[in-house]
Amino acid sequence: MIVVIKKNQNQKQVDNLTNWIKDLGLDVHISRGENSTIIGLVGDTSKVDIDLVRSLDIVESVTRVQEPYKNANRKFHPEDTIVDVAGHKFGGKHFQFIAGPCSVESEKQIIEVAEAVKKAGATLLRGGAFKPRTSPYSFQGLGLDGLKLLKKAKQETGMPIVTELMSERYLDDFEGVDVIQIGARNMQNFDLLKAVGRLKVPVLLKRGISATIEEWLMSAEYIMSEGNENVILCERGIRTFEPYTRNTLDLSAIPILKERTHLPVIVDPSHASGVARLVRPLSLASVGAGADGLIIEVHNDPTHALCDGAQSLKPEQFEEVVNSVRPLLPVVNKEMDV
Amino acid sequence: MIVVIKKNQNQKQVDNLTNWIKDLGLDVHISRGENSTIIGLVGDTSKVDIDLVRSLDIVESVTRVQEPYKNANRKFHPEDTIVDVAGHKFGGKHFQFIAGPCSVESEKQIIEVAEAVKKAGATLLRGGAFKPRTSPYSFQGLGLDGLKLLKKAKQETGMPIVTELMSERYLDDFEGVDVIQIGARNMQNFDLLKAVGRLKVPVLLKRGISATIEEWLMSAEYIMSEGNENVILCERGIRTFEPYTRNTLDLSAIPILKERTHLPVIVDPSHASGVARLVRPLSLASVGAGADGLIIEVHNDPTHALCDGAQSLKPEQFEEVVNSVRPLLPVVNKEMDV
Amino acid sequence: MIVVIKKNQNQKQVDNLTNWIKDLGLDVHISRGENSTIIGLVGDTSKVDIDLVRSLDIVESVTRVQEPYKNANRKFHPEDTIVDVAGHKFGGKHFQFIAGPCSVESEKQIIEVAEAVKKAGATLLRGGAFKPRTSPYSFQGLGLDGLKLLKKAKQETGMPIVTELMSERYLDDFEGVDVIQIGARNMQNFDLLKAVGRLKVPVLLKRGISATIEEWLMSAEYIMSEGNENVILCERGIRTFEPYTRNTLDLSAIPILKERTHLPVIVDPSHASGVARLVRPLSLASVGAGADGLIIEVHNDPTHALCDGAQSLKPEQFEEVVNSVRPLLPVVNKEMDV
Amino acid sequence: MIVVIKKNQNQKQVDNLTNWIKDLGLDVHISRGENSTIIGLVGDTSKVDIDLVRSLDIVESVTRVQEPYKNANRKFHPEDTIVDVAGHKFGGKHFQFIAGPCSVESEKQIIEVAEAVKKAGATLLRGGAFKPRTSPYSFQGLGLDGLKLLKKAKQETGMPIVTELMSERYLDDFEGVDVIQIGARNMQNFDLLKAVGRLKVPVLLKRGISATIEEWLMSAEYIMSEGNENVILCERGIRTFEPYTRNTLDLSAIPILKERTHLPVIVDPSHASGVARLVRPLSLASVGAGADGLIIEVHNDPTHALCDGAQSLKPEQFEEVVNSVRPLLPVVNKEMDV
Repeated sequence: MIVVIKKNQNQKQVDNLTNWIKDLGLDVHISRGENSTIIGLVGDTSKVDIDLVRSLDIVESVTRVQEPYKNANRKFHPEDTIVDVAGHKFGGKHFQFIAGPCSVESEKQIIEVAEAVKKAGATLLRGGAFKPRTSPYSFQGLGLDGLKLLKKAKQETGMPIVTELMSERYLDDFEGVDVIQIGARNMQNFDLLKAVGRLKVPVLLKRGISATIEEWLMSAEYIMSEGNENVILCERGIRTFEPYTRNTLDLSAIPILKERTHLPVIVDPSHASGVARLVRPLSLASVGAGADGLIIEVHNDPTHALCDGAQSLKPEQFEEVVNSVRPLLPVVNKEMDV
Repeated sequence: MIVVIKKNQNQKQVDNLTNWIKDLGLDVHISRGENSTIIGLVGDTSKVDIDLVRSLDIVESVTRVQEPYKNANRKFHPEDTIVDVAGHKFGGKHFQFIAGPCSVESEKQIIEVAEAVKKAGATLLRGGAFKPRTSPYSFQGLGLDGLKLLKKAKQETGMPIVTELMSERYLDDFEGVDVIQIGARNMQNFDLLKAVGRLKVPVLLKRGISATIEEWLMSAEYIMSEGNENVILCERGIRTFEPYTRNTLDLSAIPILKERTHLPVIVDPSHASGVARLVRPLSLASVGAGADGLIIEVHNDPTHALCDGAQSLKPEQFEEVVNSVRPLLPVVNKEMDV
Repeated sequence: MIVVIKKNQNQKQVDNLTNWIKDLGLDVHISRGENSTIIGLVGDTSKVDIDLVRSLDIVESVTRVQEPYKNANRKFHPEDTIVDVAGHKFGGKHFQFIAGPCSVESEKQIIEVAEAVKKAGATLLRGGAFKPRTSPYSFQGLGLDGLKLLKKAKQETGMPIVTELMSERYLDDFEGVDVIQIGARNMQNFDLLKAVGRLKVPVLLKRGISATIEEWLMSAEYIMSEGNENVILCERGIRTFEPYTRNTLDLSAIPILKERTHLPVIVDPSHASGVARLVRPLSLASVGAGADGLIIEVHNDPTHALCDGAQSLKPEQFEEVVNSVRPLLPVVNKEMDV
Repeated sequence: MIVVIKKNQNQKQVDNLTNWIKDLGLDVHISRGENSTIIGLVGDTSKVDIDLVRSLDIVESVTRVQEPYKNANRKFHPEDTIVDVAGHKFGGKHFQFIAGPCSVESEKQIIEVAEAVKKAGATLLRGGAFKPRTSPYSFQGLGLDGLKLLKKAKQETGMPIVTELMSERYLDDFEGVDVIQIGARNMQNFDLLKAVGRLKVPVLLKRGISATIEEWLMSAEYIMSEGNENVILCERGIRTFEPYTRNTLDLSAIPILKERTHLPVIVDPSHASGVARLVRPLSLASVGAGADGLIIEVHNDPTHALCDGAQSLKPEQFEEVVNSVRPLLPVVNKEMDV
């Protein structure tokens, strides 16, 4: 960490600062220029509160040289982490499709969708039991009943299941869930992050809607620092000024994450765009950018014409996506399970 | 709600849509133009999932005419809501200062700050016991011990206390807290919102760092729909591209909220800017924009030179802010307690 | 266009509004509900000032049903426009690589780079003569001398040239330039847009750093409405809160543009990220998203070690990008020239 | 400027970099730590291309210690600049109201508005002759005819006039204009900035819709580096994700600019919000934040009911704004002319 001190500052205040830094167990290198004094902090600076230092009257600017994350940092863990979900691997050369409906609605629905997506190439089944909704008047999901149906589908099809946890209160009920999803709105629900950090089950950590890449990695760090290293990151779009899409999918984040962290990174093209027609091109783009997998909404309700155009694909459209992704994988050094 | 149907659509799909709308108990008005068909939905449209309708293949666009919030909506509650905190009123002609340290650190500290800010004109005491921090390695607050010290300060000074709740788990421990703060990162932690909605104690609901005004009001709606109408909104800056400030204080939000909702709105100029020097001008600006109060960080540690320049003011600086705000209040039809 | 009138409005004001609309030559359909009156405007609404209508006291909301662009609109021109640059085609099944240095520096440099990128697969040569720089103290390009060198390179290699025009003053000097680039900062320099609209030479219109897709298409419309239909759109990243990249490449814009307009769309992955390492993954991602071409910075200065890591690729890195893009093209129904 | 070199880098490349820096006439201080090497650049670093250095493979990060602007920098010019417009002063203790219609429409209109706003307290008259419009189909202003009418109004009322210049082509016609406005869309039209920089007439430089404060100051620097020091900055709202306002007025920018530059700063509350109802609260807020003046749209057309609710105020509403601003001025150490 480098602290630049403003010109002509009270020497006593500068000494106070350097003594405080030394008390934190860090070494201090001072170099005085004509217009400013530069203080280099050497050692483990992750315990230094950068906002506090930046806010001091005598300080011109502060730059962090070391990233504030450790467990998630590729520097200290150069090999890709491979997260194993019941034999299906995320990271390295592996590529996985996670698919399933937005919400679990009935036993028939979830099992039918599961079978359809499995046949098309998906290895994990997703499905929402607890749904975070902007409005208290919108359908909030089937809750515990939905969870049961999802476990039933797992039993019937052998597919591991992924579903969202919104409150610590349901931790025990999530026994049997293969991947716990932490949604965008809870990316900085630190108590929840710590709670899943104390488990061993893989965690799918979605990016907060306006989270920087660094904040996202710090949330992964919350989970990992409690002992759970099985974190899969999921890009799902960020909030920008553009109104034509619900969110702006940030695919530059993929190669950046690949440099900074050893954790696997997947993409959710359904939520990013909010439109089914965009799922195929954004899936291909995600693969090109280097993603380790895709999580895609698939719905199966031929009698219910209403849902035709939603952000969910029909099974045959999902199969099309899988088939168009397949020839791209060798270009990016990836391969699908089976 | 108005749904515009694309040109030349399959009539059966249009009929499916209108039937589905009627099944929700709404009336449907259809007007056919040369280039598009327009469907007007009349009745209580808050139960219609606008994202679902928008995503249909046959739909060109959807516009909500009615706001999706009811309890928080000024249309159905034209009078200002006055939230009473132990005799100190938020809303209407009232103006309140809430002040105190970022974190509760010790009995001496919190009581000294409390006495200082009370003398300067603050009517409520703020102080963090549980601190949401981006990094798991940063100080997370004194927790339950901090809460006890805060209650001690309340007892000593008679000031009602405001502090942040981060998890339902601590609800019982918050007995005795006069205003429960929901932080920006938990603005869409819906389980937490419902939990405080079942209480009667006033809730200070901070705006999420990238929440739209409508999403913010929908989060208030979560609390109010559970029965707790004592919600105070708090603008604290939004995330933009500008790097010179930590956040961009959105003061246009104040007069907009005053039109749309009857709830009181206060401003936190300390967190928005992250810099103590900006607190005074942003406090004056907030009053000009029509805020019902200010929540300001004040620190009192004369021996600890390090904190001099932080986003926290010293008590004498806080007093200066109060004194410069005072002459503005009559211009905006407000008055301070006492 | 649909105008929703607030409840209980003065009938005279509503009549004023409807008469004004009729005077513009539009038909008006009125439907009165319990809570609001809805006015449908039928006809050519592109002449209605939506901001003006929206700002009226009696108006609750306004929704445009028809897009405000005509010439650029796919609805009125369903076939892909093919822009032909000296035999190299943009749009439809065609895929082009444009490559060259950020700035033209010397005859030797520009000719060497041109030959290298041509050999690697580029069909057009780019090079900056006039450089828009944030600081007046930064190098502003060689100007007219740079332009001459670029034309020399065209003559030597037979490659058509692409370069940026920053002021109408140089229009005559741009005689011989094959594609005129309008940079992001000038996307809404309407006088400049009109000026290139009066020519026949193809225009590469970069997206403004915070332009919505609609504003971007409206800028294309400025050019097209003057008679020049040869517009190529170029996505180059938008401004967001994320600091790890210089800009956030908005690849969702590609499939959206493909639906809304018939114009070709290419991507500039060099400027978006500002980092050479990201050019390859973002190029692959752009192809996956459906782009009609790529414009990539390539530098060739083996003695100048300093530029090694800049956003410019070395020719051999560029060749790698071309070679990794090649196998993706059939998947997205595209093919390279030659 | 501080450059942090990555661990274990090729020493030759590091030497290349330091030699290149020395060739620019700068001193170099190197300090080697265990994990990184830190290079301090001492001297006039405004000529160093920070993006280039940042992009080098061997570089971890770069921090600018000195601001890249000189003429606009308060460090080198601690006193407030006072811009004098025909005796009306901007900066220091002075506070000015600029008012007038969005567009000049007729002689009668502009003279009536001028007289009305003068009576209410405005000292300068604004009015658009050339209007930058997103759509080529929207009214583009009366152009040179509008300019003549504006000069006529100046002659009749004695009020200095402010109007927008969109192209160098009209520079001669702007003879007689007292303040040349550069609009948000042209804030980085560098040729235009240089052109007005060669004049002596005051320039009102609006902030670009997504310009950072630093970029804005760099645009002021373009004007000042050509010799024209009479620059007035004008905040008019930035683009964010919030849809309820057209733009988000960034009032934190005011006190930040007051620290960083000696130039006067005014606010345009009409364009920021797009709604007349917000003009009064945002005007009061701007004064609280420390603005040196306000520029407000005022329309005067009693027979044309249509414009009643637009972002323009009626003269009597403008007078109300002036009268409510008056009592705030002493609190912020400002006073109105006359």
